[in-house]
Amino acid sequence: MQTYEINAKNKYWSLYEKLRGDILEGRLKKGERLPSKRALAESLSVSVVTVQSAYEQLLAEGYIYSRERSGYFVSDLNVEFYGRRRSEPVSTPPEKKFRLDLVKGTASSLFPFATWARLMRSVLSDCGEHLLERVPCDGDFELKCAVASYLYRARGIDVDPRYVVIGAGAEYLYGVIVQLLGRDKLFAVENPGYNKISQTYILNGARCVYIPVGDGGVDCKRAEESGADVLHISPSHQFPTGAVTPAASRARLIGWANAGGRYVVEDDYDSEFRLSGKPLQSTFSLCPDRVIYMNTFSKSLAPSMRMGYMVLPPELYEKYLALFSHSANVVPLFEQKTLAKMLDGGFFERHINRLKNHYRAVRQAVLEKAAEFKNCKIKDTGSGLHILVSFDGASDKYMKERAAAMGINLKCLSDYLLEPLEGREGWAVINYTGLTPQAVSEINL
Amino acid sequence: MQTYEINAKNKYWSLYEKLRGDILEGRLKKGERLPSKRALAESLSVSVVTVQSAYEQLLAEGYIYSRERSGYFVSDLNVEFYGRRRSEPVSTPPEKKFRLDLVKGTASSLFPFATWARLMRSVLSDCGEHLLERVPCDGDFELKCAVASYLYRARGIDVDPRYVVIGAGAEYLYGVIVQLLGRDKLFAVENPGYNKISQTYILNGARCVYIPVGDGGVDCKRAEESGADVLHISPSHQFPTGAVTPAASRARLIGWANAGGRYVVEDDYDSEFRLSGKPLQSTFSLCPDRVIYMNTFSKSLAPSMRMGYMVLPPELYEKYLALFSHSANVVPLFEQKTLAKMLDGGFFERHINRLKNHYRAVRQAVLEKAAEFKNCKIKDTGSGLHILVSFDGASDKYMKERAAAMGINLKCLSDYLLEPLEGREGWAVINYTGLTPQAVSEINL
Repeated sequence: MQTYEINAKNKYWSLYEKLRGDILEGRLKKGERLPSKRALAESLSVSVVTVQSAYEQLLAEGYIYSRERSGYFVSDLNVEFYGRRRSEPVSTPPEKKFRLDLVKGTASSLFPFATWARLMRSVLSDCGEHLLERVPCDGDFELKCAVASYLYRARGIDVDPRYVVIGAGAEYLYGVIVQLLGRDKLFAVENPGYNKISQTYILNGARCVYIPVGDGGVDCKRAEESGADVLHISPSHQFPTGAVTPAASRARLIGWANAGGRYVVEDDYDSEFRLSGKPLQSTFSLCPDRVIYMNTFSKSLAPSMRMGYMVLPPELYEKYLALFSHSANVVPLFEQKTLAKMLDGGFFERHINRLKNHYRAVRQAVLEKAAEFKNCKIKDTGSGLHILVSFDGASDKYMKERAAAMGINLKCLSDYLLEPLEGREGWAVINYTGLTPQAVSEINL
Repeated sequence: MQTYEINAKNKYWSLYEKLRGDILEGRLKKGERLPSKRALAESLSVSVVTVQSAYEQLLAEGYIYSRERSGYFVSDLNVEFYGRRRSEPVSTPPEKKFRLDLVKGTASSLFPFATWARLMRSVLSDCGEHLLERVPCDGDFELKCAVASYLYRARGIDVDPRYVVIGAGAEYLYGVIVQLLGRDKLFAVENPGYNKISQTYILNGARCVYIPVGDGGVDCKRAEESGADVLHISPSHQFPTGAVTPAASRARLIGWANAGGRYVVEDDYDSEFRLSGKPLQSTFSLCPDRVIYMNTFSKSLAPSMRMGYMVLPPELYEKYLALFSHSANVVPLFEQKTLAKMLDGGFFERHINRLKNHYRAVRQAVLEKAAEFKNCKIKDTGSGLHILVSFDGASDKYMKERAAAMGINLKCLSDYLLEPLEGREGWAVINYTGLTPQAVSEINL
């Protein structure tokens, strides 16, 4: 009979583990009879109840079986696989730090954390246990209304709050759009563009075509000829070209969408940050039946806050309910209530204004610094958080090498090409979201 | 010259809107020259700056264009689409209320809200602005460690915390699994089963086959013959059959997965609620290289808390990083930190124990009530939160009609069939998560 060292604190579990190990490692063979409960209990100086509990656990898991009046037997396990170890852990290299990052960054130090924390505390005490309730698939109605009111105040977009759908950030919503429109649809995205958009569509199983973007926005003719069912654009300020799609093109694209039952996704990712003049009119307002309007709070609040929304055409909203009404919304109610208070209380717009003042100063410093270069040309539409600069025909390679030598992270327009396109050489993309006026003016050329 | 009523509070915007309306509705024709700034300013008694600002906005959006020294002209817009109205809003019927719901429900009144709120407040003051930081794609490391420790304490599963991936609930994680393993893979799911599993896989673009589940768990032979690449099972307590997959079958399935580079998804959805004995050993522990272990906190904490996790085999974890390392985790850091404190402080296990006591009492009441019926047979493996009952050959139709007449929401085993299967008639599924002992004992038969 086996002897086992039994852990005095948890005897039955300890015995169960030893027996299981013996079975899995072949020391107890298939069909072998286990000692009777009484005998094993005596030999181990434990109670019969302890042995019985261990046997019951093994029985429940199928390691042993019982035959009436003859006892317990080891089951027939195929245990070849056992003893395999995990492969070695992988390690990820730490992110590279730059003296100046012209590719990405945030002004998160400007986030009104004290306000946010105060609103969170008040949500916690106001809502109490209601915070545990299941959130409808399209989000908390209070937040939906707050988003609709904000869109009207800030963007002049007139939206019925019911069609607002809250989601966990832009990429999450791209995935929902694929599920909503169907994986068989062809998605057209802007080229050059933000590669996460097409990557996310593809990751979700859709196919993508790339439509060239020039100074006048997306090439309408190419979009029409592409065979696409869905067109994803940022008409107010395209990244990285900075192009603004003129009204005629928008109208033409809406006509195209209307004619073929197609959809336009209007990704208004940085429309809050038009630094001069009012925000540009949305394409959505032109034809709410064919445009899915979307935006995120990750850029304007904090990257950890994966919250965004889209406004669906009524037809798609119905389909959304049909597909998802049995699922709860993925954004916790707590964050939704806090954001609703932030919007309704005007704190969000105050924060955006502070950010805009900050970015105006950064932009001014960038423009001044650029002027120190000989023959520096600037493309800037006054919208958004990046500009394009060129230096008298300097090649992309040259610009990036110079930048790297100075500890500057820099990308060029051509780095954002999703498929090759001629005539996009010679422009550096200066994203100033992570900069401060000080950091910019301190650069020595 | 047009006359416009100009809103005194926001003159330029008001003028811009009037002009835009005229262009879109065709009152200003394409190519038509706009009045000079000075002339329009005079006729409207506004400043030239006001008109200039309105023109600049129209120019920026492409509604008009300028020709040097000749002024501003209306662009060529295709405006046929304009004037379309949204379709009528849809309305959703309210959810039906039952006297007794044997299909779904929660014991959310037992949620330790005061503790949760206290932990939230302490996270808010302890972490401060760190809460704004971007969360790595696989989740906050503190929570990953807390989950790993919990798994070891509560389930005896030995997990390297790095391989834990935090996500926004089970369905969200199913979607990630499809993206991780590939949409071309064939997913095998249990039949009868929880239809959300296959629905979510299909919604994410994968194909599914259905493998019959009997009293001994999933049919291994059928799984082997199915051609599937992935098998999704709940071996500890299958829903709705209640079957426990015996060790021999688990070993066989692991062998199958090993032989073909396949994966088993172990969905341990209610393993916390084994009401007698210790939890059953996980399949994951048998072969962490081929099993994706997953569970959610939505069932154990609150449905509004869409938080779950999976433990990936190292190879898949590497792939996960390759696919998602540029994305932030979708669960807010705030909730992740709070849950980590809940787990590490032992509050979660205390809550689970309260729930188990509650459910034991409910189960007892259900069993007693069932005994009042003549010829009632019960299938109950002591795990989880539902049992099966049959009444001397009563048909599904009869049982459901009787239940409906009594205001009881009831489903049968056959209601969970994903494709037809013989011999599954005559069993009612009693899910007691939403019941109380009082509610059960008050039923008059």
